[in-house]
Amino acid sequence: MSQSKIFKRIDGSVCAPQGFKTAAVFCNIKRLGTGKGSEKGRKRDLALIVSDTPAAVAGMFTTNQVCAAPVKWSSQRAAQRFAQAIVVNSGNANACTGRQGIRDTRRMAEIAARTLKFKATDLLVCSTGRIGVPMPMKNVERGIRACAPLLARSATNARQVAEAIMTTDTRRKEIAVEFKIGKSAVRIGGICKGAGMIQPKMSAAHATMLAFITTDAAIEPSMLKRALRIAVKQSFNRITVDGDMSTNDSVIMLANGFARNSKFEVRNSKFQDALNLVCLELAKMMVRDGEGVSRFITLHVHLARNTSEAEAAARAIANSSLVKASWCGGDPNWGRILCALGYSKAKVNESIIDVGYSHAGERAILYGFRSGRPTNISIQKLAKITSAPEFDLHVDLHAGRHEFVLYASDLTEDYVAFNKGDVSDPTTLGD
Amino acid sequence: MSQSKIFKRIDGSVCAPQGFKTAAVFCNIKRLGTGKGSEKGRKRDLALIVSDTPAAVAGMFTTNQVCAAPVKWSSQRAAQRFAQAIVVNSGNANACTGRQGIRDTRRMAEIAARTLKFKATDLLVCSTGRIGVPMPMKNVERGIRACAPLLARSATNARQVAEAIMTTDTRRKEIAVEFKIGKSAVRIGGICKGAGMIQPKMSAAHATMLAFITTDAAIEPSMLKRALRIAVKQSFNRITVDGDMSTNDSVIMLANGFARNSKFEVRNSKFQDALNLVCLELAKMMVRDGEGVSRFITLHVHLARNTSEAEAAARAIANSSLVKASWCGGDPNWGRILCALGYSKAKVNESIIDVGYSHAGERAILYGFRSGRPTNISIQKLAKITSAPEFDLHVDLHAGRHEFVLYASDLTEDYVAFNKGDVSDPTTLGD
Repeated sequence: MSQSKIFKRIDGSVCAPQGFKTAAVFCNIKRLGTGKGSEKGRKRDLALIVSDTPAAVAGMFTTNQVCAAPVKWSSQRAAQRFAQAIVVNSGNANACTGRQGIRDTRRMAEIAARTLKFKATDLLVCSTGRIGVPMPMKNVERGIRACAPLLARSATNARQVAEAIMTTDTRRKEIAVEFKIGKSAVRIGGICKGAGMIQPKMSAAHATMLAFITTDAAIEPSMLKRALRIAVKQSFNRITVDGDMSTNDSVIMLANGFARNSKFEVRNSKFQDALNLVCLELAKMMVRDGEGVSRFITLHVHLARNTSEAEAAARAIANSSLVKASWCGGDPNWGRILCALGYSKAKVNESIIDVGYSHAGERAILYGFRSGRPTNISIQKLAKITSAPEFDLHVDLHAGRHEFVLYASDLTEDYVAFNKGDVSDPTTLGD
Repeated sequence: MSQSKIFKRIDGSVCAPQGFKTAAVFCNIKRLGTGKGSEKGRKRDLALIVSDTPAAVAGMFTTNQVCAAPVKWSSQRAAQRFAQAIVVNSGNANACTGRQGIRDTRRMAEIAARTLKFKATDLLVCSTGRIGVPMPMKNVERGIRACAPLLARSATNARQVAEAIMTTDTRRKEIAVEFKIGKSAVRIGGICKGAGMIQPKMSAAHATMLAFITTDAAIEPSMLKRALRIAVKQSFNRITVDGDMSTNDSVIMLANGFARNSKFEVRNSKFQDALNLVCLELAKMMVRDGEGVSRFITLHVHLARNTSEAEAAARAIANSSLVKASWCGGDPNWGRILCALGYSKAKVNESIIDVGYSHAGERAILYGFRSGRPTNISIQKLAKITSAPEFDLHVDLHAGRHEFVLYASDLTEDYVAFNKGDVSDPTTLGD
């Protein structure tokens, strides 16, 4: 049975499951509350995602040693069995902000908790945006108080939340699926943001991509944590845009049980499959909307000695500036790919490696390099594949039976232009 | 005594030491010998560097597992005690060319050996340029035969050799120094090329930077090998442009003894100091002329637990696309630097790290982040330093007493434009 038969893609995102309400407002966080400009036409920058009842909670966070204050707070909350709400802001990452940052995160939870009539420890906090700037707490406080009365289970509200968490993203990233557990219809919905500093590497202990996933499934907290760990490993941890791992990456999931489904075995379950799908689709949306990205590459490393060497080979290729620049021009430059393989941590033997390309998702591979030497397939013929907006790259190491898939992007002039700041315009610096 | 008193910078390069002759010709290697275009106005692409007598030889080569045929050949020659000449071409790297590539390299040595009346094993071979294209051996053979009769100890010839090895370089890189060992005047001269795929990591057993160093010092081959290893470690192995380690990086040195100096202790000698200076100056020239480079950054990591953590921290910063893009705009974005430190292999504690900038080579450091939090020095004030073409970055980890210096560059739109190829123009693909 195909996945499309098991899962039904449905409209909406985090409000698709029953028992979740959301809202988003603009409170001028990025401009530090200078008060300039009206709220009209300004992007929302603060949001609440709230379950009607306490929900099983799971979270995966950046493994960056320099992690933001909200990551420190929320990873403790995700270690609990239950929580009830998430407060999130864009425009300020609250990272590298010292003790004040820690106090500000706690205060965000406290303000939201008082407004929502929860305990602060029932609230997870996420921030994304500028590093090293104190949180404009007056604006944040005003934002939270303005947001709470707007909470509703509404597709419009959920869309506004998906927009409020965007920083350099150019479009909303949303998904929702429905499937059956026994006779009960269960829903999983998710939103995320990405764009830059994208090479997440998250662990259950402590992962600027943010993803929020809700479900009305009834599931034990420990089972939820395990399911999320599995889903993140095959999705968010398999993407790279610029090879930078953020100080703020967080994936947070709440499961409130409103579907009243019967108990189920999570392993190999439809629930796990559905969660994997939701996470993978969100992760791919993030790469496609990465900063300046013009091409989406599915990189398959086949026949490696072990999975970690397959991963090392894939990451060396996908993070090589020269390889990524060649992709930007649609150039099937397998010479640069071999060069990157050679300095990767994978043990490689040049004389038995194959490098080929296929149209996105297709099986027919055209090899440029095979068994240690160039094939007679011209670079122009290969370029017909690599000049498309999406294509697959296949590297066969012929050293074992293991493989790894990485979702990668090109490096463009737009990426540099976007990230370089401009000394003549101080507002562009430090972002 | 200052170094300028010990060493005299003199004109010239590899012909400055006595007993070395050079020549360079154009033989149309890059265009695969299509014969199109006359030699007029074409860049020379094949060169010979020859000692009048057998010379002590030393070499350091790329540690990339995918290394070019000439690297395989020349690393064996550099393991000998003596050699007499170097044949080098640009336009074709002879990398990823299989067994044919190995045969072609050997044949280059044989042709040059017959023409110069040496043994093939007296010749080292170096190639730089396109990967994965067979060497146009007819052109190469014609080139070597045309080159040999032009050999002369001449500043003009040496300049032509420095030009012949250039690929994407925009200018020649040359240096020569003179100093005394006992009563004898000794000279060391060098040339190099760099520009892309620059993060060499060379070892004595086995970096596309090429450097050729000659000296008329009389020195034991084993001592020369040791001296070169020390010099490379503090120079070519401390630079990065794009973080890609090439398949062809090579540093080769010949010492022919024409200075007739007395025996000397290499350790802590003027010879070692002079060689260190020659290698470091050449290495810095390479970074300044790196592909699309607009800024040169000297990155000091201080107070690390050990040298390898200091190096890991420095390389994580210098290879972060986000950090490099911020440097392009002259943006002193210490938030991105902290982020890169956090995911580096160095153990870091955010609450005690300092990050600051100084004008190139100056001691007065302005800190943007100190003791785990932002200072009150504005980003605009820091930008006055970082908007200069050269500046120093200082990261204090406060975890120990070790340090590492890395010479780094920014990531520019020009770098991407230069390396992206263009599917509509097939001649730009695969380079």
